[in-house]
Amino acid sequence: MIDLRSDTVTHPTPAMREAMARAEVGDDVYREDPTVNHLEAMAAELLGKESALFVPSGTMGNLIGVLGHCQRGDEVIMGHLGHTFLFEGGGVSALGGVFVHTLPNQPDGTLRLDDILAAIRPPDVHHPITRLVVLENTHNRCGGVPLSVAYTRQVGDAIHARGLALHLDGARIFNAAVALGVTAKALAEPADTVTFCLSKGLCAPVGSVLCGSREFIERARRIRKQLGGGMRQAGILAAAGIVALETMIDRLAEDHRRARMLAEGLVRLPGISLPMGMPATNMVFISLDESLPIDAPAFAARLANYGVRVGVVGVRQFRLVTHYWIGDAEVAQTLEAFRAVLSALG
Amino acid sequence: MIDLRSDTVTHPTPAMREAMARAEVGDDVYREDPTVNHLEAMAAELLGKESALFVPSGTMGNLIGVLGHCQRGDEVIMGHLGHTFLFEGGGVSALGGVFVHTLPNQPDGTLRLDDILAAIRPPDVHHPITRLVVLENTHNRCGGVPLSVAYTRQVGDAIHARGLALHLDGARIFNAAVALGVTAKALAEPADTVTFCLSKGLCAPVGSVLCGSREFIERARRIRKQLGGGMRQAGILAAAGIVALETMIDRLAEDHRRARMLAEGLVRLPGISLPMGMPATNMVFISLDESLPIDAPAFAARLANYGVRVGVVGVRQFRLVTHYWIGDAEVAQTLEAFRAVLSALG
Amino acid sequence: MIDLRSDTVTHPTPAMREAMARAEVGDDVYREDPTVNHLEAMAAELLGKESALFVPSGTMGNLIGVLGHCQRGDEVIMGHLGHTFLFEGGGVSALGGVFVHTLPNQPDGTLRLDDILAAIRPPDVHHPITRLVVLENTHNRCGGVPLSVAYTRQVGDAIHARGLALHLDGARIFNAAVALGVTAKALAEPADTVTFCLSKGLCAPVGSVLCGSREFIERARRIRKQLGGGMRQAGILAAAGIVALETMIDRLAEDHRRARMLAEGLVRLPGISLPMGMPATNMVFISLDESLPIDAPAFAARLANYGVRVGVVGVRQFRLVTHYWIGDAEVAQTLEAFRAVLSALG
Amino acid sequence: MIDLRSDTVTHPTPAMREAMARAEVGDDVYREDPTVNHLEAMAAELLGKESALFVPSGTMGNLIGVLGHCQRGDEVIMGHLGHTFLFEGGGVSALGGVFVHTLPNQPDGTLRLDDILAAIRPPDVHHPITRLVVLENTHNRCGGVPLSVAYTRQVGDAIHARGLALHLDGARIFNAAVALGVTAKALAEPADTVTFCLSKGLCAPVGSVLCGSREFIERARRIRKQLGGGMRQAGILAAAGIVALETMIDRLAEDHRRARMLAEGLVRLPGISLPMGMPATNMVFISLDESLPIDAPAFAARLANYGVRVGVVGVRQFRLVTHYWIGDAEVAQTLEAFRAVLSALG
Repeated sequence: MIDLRSDTVTHPTPAMREAMARAEVGDDVYREDPTVNHLEAMAAELLGKESALFVPSGTMGNLIGVLGHCQRGDEVIMGHLGHTFLFEGGGVSALGGVFVHTLPNQPDGTLRLDDILAAIRPPDVHHPITRLVVLENTHNRCGGVPLSVAYTRQVGDAIHARGLALHLDGARIFNAAVALGVTAKALAEPADTVTFCLSKGLCAPVGSVLCGSREFIERARRIRKQLGGGMRQAGILAAAGIVALETMIDRLAEDHRRARMLAEGLVRLPGISLPMGMPATNMVFISLDESLPIDAPAFAARLANYGVRVGVVGVRQFRLVTHYWIGDAEVAQTLEAFRAVLSALG
Repeated sequence: MIDLRSDTVTHPTPAMREAMARAEVGDDVYREDPTVNHLEAMAAELLGKESALFVPSGTMGNLIGVLGHCQRGDEVIMGHLGHTFLFEGGGVSALGGVFVHTLPNQPDGTLRLDDILAAIRPPDVHHPITRLVVLENTHNRCGGVPLSVAYTRQVGDAIHARGLALHLDGARIFNAAVALGVTAKALAEPADTVTFCLSKGLCAPVGSVLCGSREFIERARRIRKQLGGGMRQAGILAAAGIVALETMIDRLAEDHRRARMLAEGLVRLPGISLPMGMPATNMVFISLDESLPIDAPAFAARLANYGVRVGVVGVRQFRLVTHYWIGDAEVAQTLEAFRAVLSALG
Repeated sequence: MIDLRSDTVTHPTPAMREAMARAEVGDDVYREDPTVNHLEAMAAELLGKESALFVPSGTMGNLIGVLGHCQRGDEVIMGHLGHTFLFEGGGVSALGGVFVHTLPNQPDGTLRLDDILAAIRPPDVHHPITRLVVLENTHNRCGGVPLSVAYTRQVGDAIHARGLALHLDGARIFNAAVALGVTAKALAEPADTVTFCLSKGLCAPVGSVLCGSREFIERARRIRKQLGGGMRQAGILAAAGIVALETMIDRLAEDHRRARMLAEGLVRLPGISLPMGMPATNMVFISLDESLPIDAPAFAARLANYGVRVGVVGVRQFRLVTHYWIGDAEVAQTLEAFRAVLSALG
Repeated sequence: MIDLRSDTVTHPTPAMREAMARAEVGDDVYREDPTVNHLEAMAAELLGKESALFVPSGTMGNLIGVLGHCQRGDEVIMGHLGHTFLFEGGGVSALGGVFVHTLPNQPDGTLRLDDILAAIRPPDVHHPITRLVVLENTHNRCGGVPLSVAYTRQVGDAIHARGLALHLDGARIFNAAVALGVTAKALAEPADTVTFCLSKGLCAPVGSVLCGSREFIERARRIRKQLGGGMRQAGILAAAGIVALETMIDRLAEDHRRARMLAEGLVRLPGISLPMGMPATNMVFISLDESLPIDAPAFAARLANYGVRVGVVGVRQFRLVTHYWIGDAEVAQTLEAFRAVLSALG
């Protein structure tokens, strides 16, 4: 199977399996797992923050990020197409009593600075206290687009001046860094806290890291325990994470190249267009023309007969995500499968 | 002072003071206050619901409305200009763990039906469970506009078919009913629950009523107690509420007539416009032209010197609300004060 | 009917009705109600705190007290027979995410200081953060007993030294003050915040007051709004509260005298005992001997036939509470009714 | 180092490392990880429930257990020495708005049935709704004692008859089963839901399993996602869990034998006693006599110089826990270290 549904489907590499099998471990709840400690130190360094915390998922990283900044009844500003709004089960409100204030994501994944500033509430007994802005980089639902250092800094400066904090959902921040030719550290610098994933494009089986100030991460550690995210000999997983950080970042450029190759091939096919344009990173969003006598779920089912799985994200829309396990041959096969399905439609 | 900031500033009428002084009371937590019981029965009848509950404020009425329909982590759809989103302290998330999904209010106070339907989440482990839609009638921030029976029914039918409930923030539902020439009952019919205020245009000093099914109101009673909204000899307040329902509804037409009179007078003044058009009920929203060398707070301060208080709702925007204590003479005086301030600007 | 179920059943006095009818009012959400402002100033003065806030109920006063001190996941220590644990719908956890740590109330209504100190958690990622202790004075379920100034100060000093705050549920603090011959201010002095009720023994129809530092009360005002406890022309109710504070405190001694009279009369009757001893304030708890062929609900039903209502608080236990509307004649009639019911049992 | 602080410090066995290195994995958020699916099926079978869910920790298992049964404002009954009350950060209230009602744990780890029944609240607007009882087996803080099938069934029957559910914190349920000579299934049968740990005595590096009805586990899956406990290629961890279930349960008898050996050796030393008696499973609680001129932390520091780590659980109390990595030699060395420290005290 060629699985293009997401980069979350990536299996660990042989080097990761080897590292996991040999990992030195300890009880991380006692902070005695040397491999976890090593990974957290690496991650903090890489993202330019004082401290870091290993968590079981990007969702938990974002949840702790928001709960660490916001108390019951505080308000968080976020995009209406952001992962935290769309795909995290409403946890920030459900579990943390945080009030969500959505703003329209622009096609480039940003929130308009004017919108952000207008959304900050003046002190008044009728209002929640606006505390936090969440940005997402790369922005998944806007096409895997990267947010620039300049934009992030502009938002950071403007909201810090008003006493708010910035949390960056950097699940795929290394894709952004590679695409923009900057460091993840530069992208994270304006943010008070940042989460990134070791799984997804970096191929580790499980885990994300939340980075921030020492004081913030101490608070985060307590919240992680409360959520049940404290794991015992987590060094097993951290070992794969270290391999990911050491060996898997630069090669994301390969995924981006193949995403473009895929997009270029697909857009040449009849009835297929790229509603978000050419991919900037590893995600290709395509639309089926209204003239085609088939909708996305049915089309996807036929692709599956050719060994290709794609993500259905709308009635006539797909998302295809390239990753470590998708090489040039898989790109070619995928294009072949699309051609075959289209041909069969007559 | 001519106070046009809001209809919340209304004092009780002499008849209400008389009724309060003579009210027969009991312990309403034991459900033994005959005056409260009478008011609740009247309210249920008037709104066409099985049962009703007296609460200290519209905010509590809406909060219980949402908490009675939604559990921790459920999702409520509401307008981004609605009272519940803007002015209720984020209570539904802060206190109830309910996730807020805002949609853009249209200029007429409605939410687009397509937007609502698109916002309902399919069952998926990544999603909160969408449970409730909140509409507001009249819609305060959209100009005090009434929502029609037809619109409300259309929304109610569409969401009921998808298993969602409808809560109506009818703080000023009687203004809507009077303006549209329909009954409040007809406006509330498509809603599962509805809150209306006895204060505001109806002049009672304190209190709102939440109406719904018998089963819902039993649940609401428990939530009210938990919030601390259970009051002892609340018949004192309910007595004024009964006078309000018996004698103050029809006269809202007077407030509407005076709002139009005010708007017509103001729009003739140089530099003043009506961004939301002529008032449909008792609220007049006006803008100061950019050419005027003064902003809204400064203008309001000068009006105050003439004994007129208005609500500042933007850098160059005011809201003026007519009510029981604003007669024709007060309208004339207000226009005079505006003229005087404008003249002094040269 | 002679209603001894509780002092919550008290109706307002004629002086209160008069004051309510003539009260000068304004919109208290704008902080413009002069009567509310006056009451809050009086209450703060009387309790020796910087500031005060009028709320619709004692339950809301305690809820805001706890939520103002504790954030999501903080821990509050309270007695297992306290009103906040037993009768407030679990609001501190349900609405505020506060973790409840109960300790056994001693027969005199206190918590053992050693228990309190042992319950305070050391800093550890496994623990909630212990923030607050709640005491109740007089202690309702322990027999209406007053807590002494010395005890309250001892607890206050000990927990302040450990960084915790003290909230006093002083629903009936004036009963305690009168019984002990001290001021309410002295009883409240060791507490950071204190709630007392204007209803109950003081006879106002609705309302309680939360007192604390200026900074705390500002925070409380926001929480009150969020809960829906902000009321408009609340001066109507505050007017009765002012009469209560001015004229009803000293006379609580009468209620205490009559409670003793009642207790002395009842304990002489066959099969009736005082499990908590002679009343210290206005509550008489009595037990029916096992030998009597009747349980408390059935006994209460027979008393009702004689025009006497009592509170059933156990299978063979009653609570009788004296208050303004219970004079010497009503005490005598009550004793007569008990005698009659007991005689009829043979 | 001989680490007796807890069985949470256990490292994975070579067979587990091997299984993890070779595990077949998939994206478990899509329910496509065959190893996780296999583990969950095994666990459900072993515990006699319809379905099971892999979670990152016992804390999350209990949290989801409680949140799956209880909504905002519901009440859970639990022991005052239970893990959920003491060591889970107050998460059930902080995150779930659940009200905690503690009852005194008896020395054998049970809650008295009479206490439980008395704690269930009758329906009343003043009360939270009592929904759930949590038991813990083995009971950690009561000495690692197992709760019998008969007791568990008695509680289950009694509370089911009153409409409540039973959640069993079976973190060490296999220790209980082995000690009692019954199946874990029999111990779990009266419970609606049960959590057990793959780490601790069973040596897997990370993970617990929550078991219950199919319908409950579907709900739990959603809550797990919301908490951020959904992990991607979790089959890596599940592979170790399968080895744990297949090979590590029966050998817990060895840990119990060594705990007794350790206890017998320690109790013969001067100044050392067993406040909870001989160990029933793998935990030895010991007290230092008041006559010894040293407290527990200082004593533990000296033991560490001999390569032995023990858990300090009171001013003069230790907990020593046996596990896979503690053989007969380690028991002997531990006794030797105690002897040496005691001798040096003179």
